[in-house]
Amino acid sequence: MSTATVTAREVHLVRRPQGMPVADDFAIVDRALPEPGDGEVLVANRSFSVDPYMRGRMNDVKSYVPPYALDAPMDGRAVGEVVASNAEGFAEGDLVLANLAWRTHGVAHARTLQKVPDVEGVEPSAYLGVLGAPGLTAWVGLLDIASFVEGDAVFVSGAAGAVGSLVGQLAKLKGASRVIGSAGTAAKTAWLTDELGFDVALNYKDGPIREQLRDAAPDGIDVYFDNVGGDHLEAAIEVANDYARVANCGAIAHYNDTDDDRTPGPDNLFQIVKKRLRLQGFIVTDSLSRFPAFLEEVTPWVAEGRVKHSETVVEGIDQAVEAFRGLLRGENTGKMVVTV
Amino acid sequence: MSTATVTAREVHLVRRPQGMPVADDFAIVDRALPEPGDGEVLVANRSFSVDPYMRGRMNDVKSYVPPYALDAPMDGRAVGEVVASNAEGFAEGDLVLANLAWRTHGVAHARTLQKVPDVEGVEPSAYLGVLGAPGLTAWVGLLDIASFVEGDAVFVSGAAGAVGSLVGQLAKLKGASRVIGSAGTAAKTAWLTDELGFDVALNYKDGPIREQLRDAAPDGIDVYFDNVGGDHLEAAIEVANDYARVANCGAIAHYNDTDDDRTPGPDNLFQIVKKRLRLQGFIVTDSLSRFPAFLEEVTPWVAEGRVKHSETVVEGIDQAVEAFRGLLRGENTGKMVVTV
Repeated sequence: MSTATVTAREVHLVRRPQGMPVADDFAIVDRALPEPGDGEVLVANRSFSVDPYMRGRMNDVKSYVPPYALDAPMDGRAVGEVVASNAEGFAEGDLVLANLAWRTHGVAHARTLQKVPDVEGVEPSAYLGVLGAPGLTAWVGLLDIASFVEGDAVFVSGAAGAVGSLVGQLAKLKGASRVIGSAGTAAKTAWLTDELGFDVALNYKDGPIREQLRDAAPDGIDVYFDNVGGDHLEAAIEVANDYARVANCGAIAHYNDTDDDRTPGPDNLFQIVKKRLRLQGFIVTDSLSRFPAFLEEVTPWVAEGRVKHSETVVEGIDQAVEAFRGLLRGENTGKMVVTV
Repeated sequence: MSTATVTAREVHLVRRPQGMPVADDFAIVDRALPEPGDGEVLVANRSFSVDPYMRGRMNDVKSYVPPYALDAPMDGRAVGEVVASNAEGFAEGDLVLANLAWRTHGVAHARTLQKVPDVEGVEPSAYLGVLGAPGLTAWVGLLDIASFVEGDAVFVSGAAGAVGSLVGQLAKLKGASRVIGSAGTAAKTAWLTDELGFDVALNYKDGPIREQLRDAAPDGIDVYFDNVGGDHLEAAIEVANDYARVANCGAIAHYNDTDDDRTPGPDNLFQIVKKRLRLQGFIVTDSLSRFPAFLEEVTPWVAEGRVKHSETVVEGIDQAVEAFRGLLRGENTGKMVVTV
C-alpha cells in the first residue's frame, strides 16, 4: 500500500477558553499526514460532529473525559471515506465512523473505526446524531435513568437539539400522556409541534420558563430530561409530580460559567424531599453496552420515518469554530454537523 | 369503665406562621376531654416529640401530609400512660406510643396506639427518637436511598440531630471509611467526635462549609445525607466522588423561606452530570414496611450502648412553642422532646 502525501487541515485548541470560546482560542493548521502504519487507515472526512460536551473538554479540569490537549486537533465523531488502508477489513471507498473531528483527514487505527451500516432509508450522517451517541443518550436517559413508563408526562429542555428532539419522539412512541419541549426560537418550537409531534413547545425567550411550564403542564410532569440546568431545572422541579424522575444530561446554561460568573441554581430544591424526586446525572459513555439494543429498536423507526431528525449543516472546516459557537448559542435545529 | 373528667392542656395552631414561628401563632387551651368511647383510650402524656417536619405542616400547602388544622392541637408522636381504657388489649398503666403531641392528655382509638416495647436498657422515650421515626429515617436514608456500602465515605449535615446522629453511627458500624458530620456549636461537634465516634465534625459557623468540607474530605465523599440543603448541599456536591449518592431528607435551611425571601440553591448542579450523581428525596412514611427490619437491627445496638443517643428535654407543655423554635434554630442535641 502506498499513497501520495496528504495534507490535512486541522482545527487546534491553542488556549483554554474563558466563558464563550472565541476565534483566538483556536488555530487552523495545515499538516502533512504520515502514511498509515501497520493496522492503520487514512480517512477523508465527509462530515464531523460538534457537541456541547466538547466545551467541558476545553477546560483543563478533571472530568469524565480528559481535557483536550493544546496544539492538537480535538477528538470527536466523524463520518469519512477510507482513502488508503493498511488494515485488514478496510478498503478504499469504505464509509467509516471515526474519532477524527475538527480536521479534513486523519490517520486512525482500525480498532477505533466502525463501518457505517448500510441501511435503506438511513443516511450515513445519521450515525453522528439520531443513531449515534446523541441518540443513545436520549434513549438511555429516558428509559434507564429517568425510568420512563407509559402514561408519564415528559418535559425535555433543549428539545430541538440532537438529543432532546429524540427524547420527545421516543416518549410519544412509547405512550407518554403528554410531551412538552422547550427551545429558543419560534422556528424550533414550530418544528417540535408540527413535525415531531410534541404536544406543546415553549419558547423560553417568550417569558419565564417557570410560568410557561406551569401553564403547559396542568397535571404536572413525571419525567424531566434536562439539557439546560438553571431556570429550566427549577421550573421542572416546581411542576414535578410526586416521585418524578429527572435525567440530568446536560447543563448548557452553565457551560460557559466562570469562577466569577456563575448561573444561579434552583432555589426550590427542598421540593426534592417533599415530592420524593430523584435526580440522576449520567454520561452516555457509561452505557455503551446498551448500543446494540438501542440500534435494534430505533434504526427501523428512523428508516421508516417514524422518528424524524434534522441536521444543521455548516460547510467547511474553516467554519468549525463558528459552528461550535452557534451550537452553544442554540442556533442549531437537531444535530450540528460540519461538512468538509 | 368510668373516670372523672380530665382537663387537657393543648397547644393549638391559631395562625399560619410567616418564616420563623412566633408565640402568637399558637394558643394554649385548656379543654375538658370526653370520656373514651368504644375502642378508645385516654392517655396521659409523659413526653412528646417536636420535629422539623412539623414546620411544613403549619403551612396551608399541598404536601406529603395534610397541613395542620387551625384551632386544634397538632399531631405528632408521644409516649404516654393509659389512664382509662375502653379498648380491648389496653389497661390502665400501659405505656403507649400515640399521635398525641402538643397536649398533656388525649383520647385516641386503640388502632392508632402501639405499646412501648419493654426492652432492657432501652428507655421508653427512645421510641420517639433513635428507635422511632427519626431512627427509621436515618436507617432507610442511608441504606435504601443512598445505597451505602462498606468503605464509603459519608457526610451528614444536621449531624447532632435525632436523625443525623444515628446516620453517622450506623455508617461507622457498617464500615464507612470516613464519617464527617456538621453541626452548629462546639459542644455538638465535640459530642460527635468524642462520644459518637465521628471521624471529623465541622462547625458550620466557623467558616464556609464548602471550604471546611474540602479540607475534611481529601478523598471525597460517596454518600451525603442531607438534612440542611442550601450551602451544605452545594459543599457536598463539590467534594462528591463520581457516582456519589445523596439522600435528601430535610432542608432545614429552607423551612422558613417565604415567597419573598428564599435561600439560594447550589450553583454547581452541573456537577450532577459530570460526576453522575444521584440525588433522591424521601419521606419516611413511604418506608414504614421497613420498621420491623430496622428495629431488629438497631434495638440491640441501642440496648448495648453501641448506638448512643441524646435527648434535649424541655419541661412543660407551656414551653412547647419555645422548644420548637429552639429546634429550628438548632438548639437541640439529639432528639428534642417536651416532657409533660
